[in-house]
Amino acid sequence: MSQPAPIIMPSPGGTPSIEPLRRLVAAEMDACNREIIARMQSDVQLIPQLAHHLIASGGKRIRPLLTLGAAKLCGYEGDKQILLAACVEFIHTATLLHDDVVDESERRRGAETANVVWGNQASVLVGDFLFSRAFQLMVESGSLEVLRILAGASAVIAEGEVLQLMTANDMDSTEADYLKVIESKTAALFAAACRVGAVVADRPLAEAEAMDAYGRDLGIAFQLIDDALDYASDGATLGKNTGDDFREGKVTLPVVLAFNRGSEAERAFWRRVIETPEQQTPEDFAEALRLMRQHGTLAETLERARRYGAQAKAQLAGFKPGAMRDALAEAVDFAIHRAL
Amino acid sequence: MSQPAPIIMPSPGGTPSIEPLRRLVAAEMDACNREIIARMQSDVQLIPQLAHHLIASGGKRIRPLLTLGAAKLCGYEGDKQILLAACVEFIHTATLLHDDVVDESERRRGAETANVVWGNQASVLVGDFLFSRAFQLMVESGSLEVLRILAGASAVIAEGEVLQLMTANDMDSTEADYLKVIESKTAALFAAACRVGAVVADRPLAEAEAMDAYGRDLGIAFQLIDDALDYASDGATLGKNTGDDFREGKVTLPVVLAFNRGSEAERAFWRRVIETPEQQTPEDFAEALRLMRQHGTLAETLERARRYGAQAKAQLAGFKPGAMRDALAEAVDFAIHRAL
Repeated sequence: MSQPAPIIMPSPGGTPSIEPLRRLVAAEMDACNREIIARMQSDVQLIPQLAHHLIASGGKRIRPLLTLGAAKLCGYEGDKQILLAACVEFIHTATLLHDDVVDESERRRGAETANVVWGNQASVLVGDFLFSRAFQLMVESGSLEVLRILAGASAVIAEGEVLQLMTANDMDSTEADYLKVIESKTAALFAAACRVGAVVADRPLAEAEAMDAYGRDLGIAFQLIDDALDYASDGATLGKNTGDDFREGKVTLPVVLAFNRGSEAERAFWRRVIETPEQQTPEDFAEALRLMRQHGTLAETLERARRYGAQAKAQLAGFKPGAMRDALAEAVDFAIHRAL
Repeated sequence: MSQPAPIIMPSPGGTPSIEPLRRLVAAEMDACNREIIARMQSDVQLIPQLAHHLIASGGKRIRPLLTLGAAKLCGYEGDKQILLAACVEFIHTATLLHDDVVDESERRRGAETANVVWGNQASVLVGDFLFSRAFQLMVESGSLEVLRILAGASAVIAEGEVLQLMTANDMDSTEADYLKVIESKTAALFAAACRVGAVVADRPLAEAEAMDAYGRDLGIAFQLIDDALDYASDGATLGKNTGDDFREGKVTLPVVLAFNRGSEAERAFWRRVIETPEQQTPEDFAEALRLMRQHGTLAETLERARRYGAQAKAQLAGFKPGAMRDALAEAVDFAIHRAL
């Protein structure tokens, strides 16, 4: 069967990039990377080995970039944001390690997952270590407010992951459930990453809240695109396997919309493939894509992402105009433009 | 085959108990239990369900009791110790949830483990939630020093768990490796639980360090006894399955000593059963017990526990004499006396 044409079309104009943001905080990001390497060390050899596999595997480091960018946008001139950015990346990495165990994932960022190389047990425990280490870094920052924000985000992430587990393989879970899952498992850390940048700069509450809202809307847009790409990308793009969500029976927005808009027979199809994914046939994924095209659910998912993206950018209005603000706005477009 | 006589004999005199400690902090422990129930709530139903299964299943709550007792011994009259005791229990519970996944345990405290009832995925994620929640409670305590102590302990626990994973099924791991594992996975949290009691009471560093050392030595004694009981108890006593460590090929002290003291043939036995536990025969456990009796390794393990226990009690010398100090000393004897 031939591959369908891409469902999500390139936006007109140049390709938005995260590079302007990366360039503006290049020195801080280098320092953050050094901090990450230094702080994942342990006498217990397996810990740095396993952590290095994931941390050095070429993730985009979008969350720590946001912390560094937010601190700079807020005029911060100290260096505490570096520790906090490392801390945000550690929380994210711990989450990925546990995620891959929970999802039984085999590939991430174009490489075998840690659970495949070292086993589930090591992935769970090294995730715990990185998570604890993140809290040690936060304590060093000396700010209880930062600790409050990031401990809160961590609890919400875990809630989101549990909710995702509960809604998987259940076609009765709703669009509202889906939104709560992605707000929790993804957007909460984006929001916290941005907010701590404002908090470390000791800015007024309104600015911290604007940064929080920027990060949250960006995070939702980011996850909507991720979930669309799981049906629309060619696998190489994201470095993970297209169709993973489908094979696991995750109820993401493209699926919910196709189910809601589907005929009786189509709904029966979705119930079967999502609720008993182990019985999927090789043709089912192509049929899912066909139904999504027919009902425009990937385009609709992209449209939602654009709306959240616009909201995120609107949150930047109160901040100082200039290269940093532009770069943070472009980061939003970049997150959405991955959908090419 | 008839059961061997108990290897570890009752100590003369009355049976030491943890009840005096429990009585002296009864009001605080009630408040702590209410806090635990309140703070494990979440809109995501599976979280309180699963947490309740473990938390309400009749653990002895020895770690929060120690926090409450230490605070009282140090003359603290506020109520922050209640939050901290709940926090210590949450860290412990999160660790148990992940432990049971890693060890593929099926029973704990006389009931099915959460991973058996709800699956590994839920256990990993709810563990993450409880761990995050613990940090949220710490932030509420308002003390960066408390956060430093408990975040440090959490990282050390994870290191100990990873080290245990690496030394399992490896008869070349040493007594020193074993000691490092139990100091990390068990004693670090006992030490931190006691230390935060002194810190919340704002006592001088020397007292915090004495409480830390008391908890650490007690924790080591506690784990030594646990590891002896895995070979010597009748299963009902601890509410877990006797022989679990053996079946998993964990290299605990009774095994290390039997290996070190064994003949060439005995060492070959230990290598086989520990390094390839999946090939154990039904007779192997009885043979392991026979070798341990022959070389006195359970008695030696108990003797080591007694020595650590004596050290723990010696740390109490500088504190105010009275019922609380006596109760904390008796808690040490209780931990060791479980070996009946």
